[in-house]
Amino acid sequence: MFESAEMGHAIDKATYNRRVPKLREALLSAQIDVLVAKKFPVLVLINGVEGAGKGEVAHTLSEWMDARHIITHGFGEHTDEERARPPMWRFWRALPPKGNVGLFFGSWYSDSILGRVVGTMKHGAFEDQLDRIVNLEQMLADEGVALVKLWFHLSKDEQRKRLKSLEKDKTTQWRVTKRDWEFFAKYDEFKSVSEAVIRRTSTGHAPWHIIEGTDARYRSLTSATLLLEAMNRGLDRVQQAAHQKKPTQGKAAEARRATPVTAELDHKNLVNQIDLEQKLPKKKYESKLDKLQGELNLLSRHKRMKNIGVVCVFEGSDAAGKGGAIRRIVHALDVRSYHVVPIAAPTDEERAQPYLWRFWRHMPRKSKLTIFDRSWYGRVLVERVEGFAKESDWRRAFSEINDFEEQLAESDLVLCKFWLQIGKDEQLRRFKEREKTGFKRFKITDEDWRNRKKWDEYEVAAAEMVDRTSTEHSPWTLVGAQDKYHTRICVLEELVRRISEALR
Amino acid sequence: MFESAEMGHAIDKATYNRRVPKLREALLSAQIDVLVAKKFPVLVLINGVEGAGKGEVAHTLSEWMDARHIITHGFGEHTDEERARPPMWRFWRALPPKGNVGLFFGSWYSDSILGRVVGTMKHGAFEDQLDRIVNLEQMLADEGVALVKLWFHLSKDEQRKRLKSLEKDKTTQWRVTKRDWEFFAKYDEFKSVSEAVIRRTSTGHAPWHIIEGTDARYRSLTSATLLLEAMNRGLDRVQQAAHQKKPTQGKAAEARRATPVTAELDHKNLVNQIDLEQKLPKKKYESKLDKLQGELNLLSRHKRMKNIGVVCVFEGSDAAGKGGAIRRIVHALDVRSYHVVPIAAPTDEERAQPYLWRFWRHMPRKSKLTIFDRSWYGRVLVERVEGFAKESDWRRAFSEINDFEEQLAESDLVLCKFWLQIGKDEQLRRFKEREKTGFKRFKITDEDWRNRKKWDEYEVAAAEMVDRTSTEHSPWTLVGAQDKYHTRICVLEELVRRISEALR
Repeated sequence: MFESAEMGHAIDKATYNRRVPKLREALLSAQIDVLVAKKFPVLVLINGVEGAGKGEVAHTLSEWMDARHIITHGFGEHTDEERARPPMWRFWRALPPKGNVGLFFGSWYSDSILGRVVGTMKHGAFEDQLDRIVNLEQMLADEGVALVKLWFHLSKDEQRKRLKSLEKDKTTQWRVTKRDWEFFAKYDEFKSVSEAVIRRTSTGHAPWHIIEGTDARYRSLTSATLLLEAMNRGLDRVQQAAHQKKPTQGKAAEARRATPVTAELDHKNLVNQIDLEQKLPKKKYESKLDKLQGELNLLSRHKRMKNIGVVCVFEGSDAAGKGGAIRRIVHALDVRSYHVVPIAAPTDEERAQPYLWRFWRHMPRKSKLTIFDRSWYGRVLVERVEGFAKESDWRRAFSEINDFEEQLAESDLVLCKFWLQIGKDEQLRRFKEREKTGFKRFKITDEDWRNRKKWDEYEVAAAEMVDRTSTEHSPWTLVGAQDKYHTRICVLEELVRRISEALR
Repeated sequence: MFESAEMGHAIDKATYNRRVPKLREALLSAQIDVLVAKKFPVLVLINGVEGAGKGEVAHTLSEWMDARHIITHGFGEHTDEERARPPMWRFWRALPPKGNVGLFFGSWYSDSILGRVVGTMKHGAFEDQLDRIVNLEQMLADEGVALVKLWFHLSKDEQRKRLKSLEKDKTTQWRVTKRDWEFFAKYDEFKSVSEAVIRRTSTGHAPWHIIEGTDARYRSLTSATLLLEAMNRGLDRVQQAAHQKKPTQGKAAEARRATPVTAELDHKNLVNQIDLEQKLPKKKYESKLDKLQGELNLLSRHKRMKNIGVVCVFEGSDAAGKGGAIRRIVHALDVRSYHVVPIAAPTDEERAQPYLWRFWRHMPRKSKLTIFDRSWYGRVLVERVEGFAKESDWRRAFSEINDFEEQLAESDLVLCKFWLQIGKDEQLRRFKEREKTGFKRFKITDEDWRNRKKWDEYEVAAAEMVDRTSTEHSPWTLVGAQDKYHTRICVLEELVRRISEALR
């Protein structure tokens, strides 16, 4: 795999000097087009062997382009805020927004490769991590990110020479650390693990480019050309999309066409089969509520809570009582231990990022609890039914969400997902009741009435959602929410059960 | 000062039960109005004696209102990301956006009070800190934040009783730590320091409310009533502002009226007296550039860089060569060590916060360098001249900025501010040249031409800015930028000088 990067690639000075001016102009011009279009970000991963010129290449790219719109991140030691969250959190928070160019040193590859070489990561975990990376990059590609993966290689001899020559020069000797030589001693292991990683993660949408790092001119020209190509491909896609004919009936039509795919012939689905008749008398409710809130409070102060975090997701029919259930949870908790995140329209900073970014940013630290009032499932519910998302986008969301939630589970975040279902008649009754009380809090908006008209479509979407995203580590809890008392107890019982389990 | 909070205030159950329903409804209604108006945030500081019911009050407020739009922060141990930045950074990042309610436990008061009691903070530093707090709260008030400062008090006897009774009860004994008893032993010192703090920081725009913490009903009702009043005052202000007649000539007129105040009769000012004729021959430039970039590179890798951060600010006439000067700086640096922040229009998340928030969020960690291409000075330059900011707003910006920069200096952030000035003819020449090259990067926009028409007004604004914000710890460097070579060397020399000084 690395053979072609050990051939002694080099560019002579004359050729270099002839080619650079044009390349620079083209790079800068493409960068400005990307900036002005603001439709996608560019992300360059800079990986490879120490001494192969990674820093120098980044430096050159920053000089040839407009450094003001390049955001560089070196991922070294994890900060404690990062350590308290899933490993991918640090990369999500650093993603460049649309229009910008990001350079990542030490990306999501570094920990896996190092872990595998020094043996702290088992083979199985390693393979899982590579799967995760493939999925992540697929998602980035689907979100329009222009991803450029550069691997800078040196043969063993060349690396030894390079480290020695850096060491000899007074102005560069600081760059060679004890660690570099320790790693050099493991050159062969690094090479073999890296090869496995590159093979496994070089995909159609996110191929690796292996660049021989010996000759500065060669590696600069090659990297810059690859970056330019990626930017231009991204710009072409934007232009194509702009010229594509819109379907005559618009997005809503597309969504409607999509719906029947999952509708069952007998009209039975996971959601419309929820037993809505379950009830709890007030007396029983009150005693159970007291007991469960007491338990939840005790759990929230448990010593081992420092090892886990809790994420609750509330979805369901409008007026199904999500707010009331959330109030019964937070009532049991110290206000400093939880955050409630109501999901409304995204801000413009959120719109400039991949879909899941706005949820990643709210992931709790260990020992904390975050409650999402509506959530990332909006993509396969309202965005699907109302046609706000393209079919291809909401379809891929299922696996993206499963992947996302798997990461939470692996980082000891307990995820409790509640679907609260009421009947169509009961919803009408509640809407009317709310309109009568006139109290602003319960104002029924036009949107609520509009959603109600699409009752069946929402039901089909919800059923498919539950079906596709109820996993072992993060199952859906389907709650017949016709009776408020039953609903709240049901939610609290499940939450207490899940946290107890995790603390065991 | 605390006498009236040691009187045994209490509310009987009947009164409480009679008053709570109406209060809750009013609170919730005001909260929703605040949320819908989205014109200001509400910030409640919860301070005072341990055991005085701070947590319980916050809990009650969250229950009476809509917890989904309340953001609670407990400021305990500093994270390492917080420790690497000025102390106020952690509060800035936690400020609630407009429309939301924030509850802060352990606000900017806690560290000062504790530091003074245990003796780690000297009297002078303590007084400075109180000044800083007064300024911060003045700024928050000016930005429209509805600030409610609650101090929960217990007499010494009551605190002892309270801690003992918490300890006795199995379900609450976890709440009393060894530290609580250690602090209790210093009750009198805490009381005297707290009294000094409250006296000094109870201002017209941000008064303290001291609440006796013995009786749960009394403290809940009192806190909720104060919060309600603050929200309603904020809502009244919004309504008044909406009904106020706009000045007939608009904002620009207001800005123009403001201008003469600082214009000097002899038309001499700090900016138009900058010597524009300084030049540097190319040869000298090249050798100086090499030398300075080498020095800067060495400095950036200095061991003691881990103790300081660097912030550069670039302001100046359009086309004065800011971009070129910035490129010469970053060229000397490892791409992982700096960020360039180009200041454009604020995002909506930034607009939902006080003016300085968007700059605070980019403050570098120790060991890093951040370059602002345009900056917080926009408020007293473009926003002033174009009338985007009210006169009262840009006027107060001078002292807010000085305060802000003083904080950076105290946290060992080296702040270098460059004003690049060219002559009116030279600007015209550069504009035309840029239009000719046709290369997009140097596109001259209508805005540039518009700004040019207000040359004199910008000059007056810049001169006043320099005059008012050139301080010992963060002086302006005024650069006659007619000659590019001179400009770049001048900038690099100053930067190298300042960093060397800081590392000494």
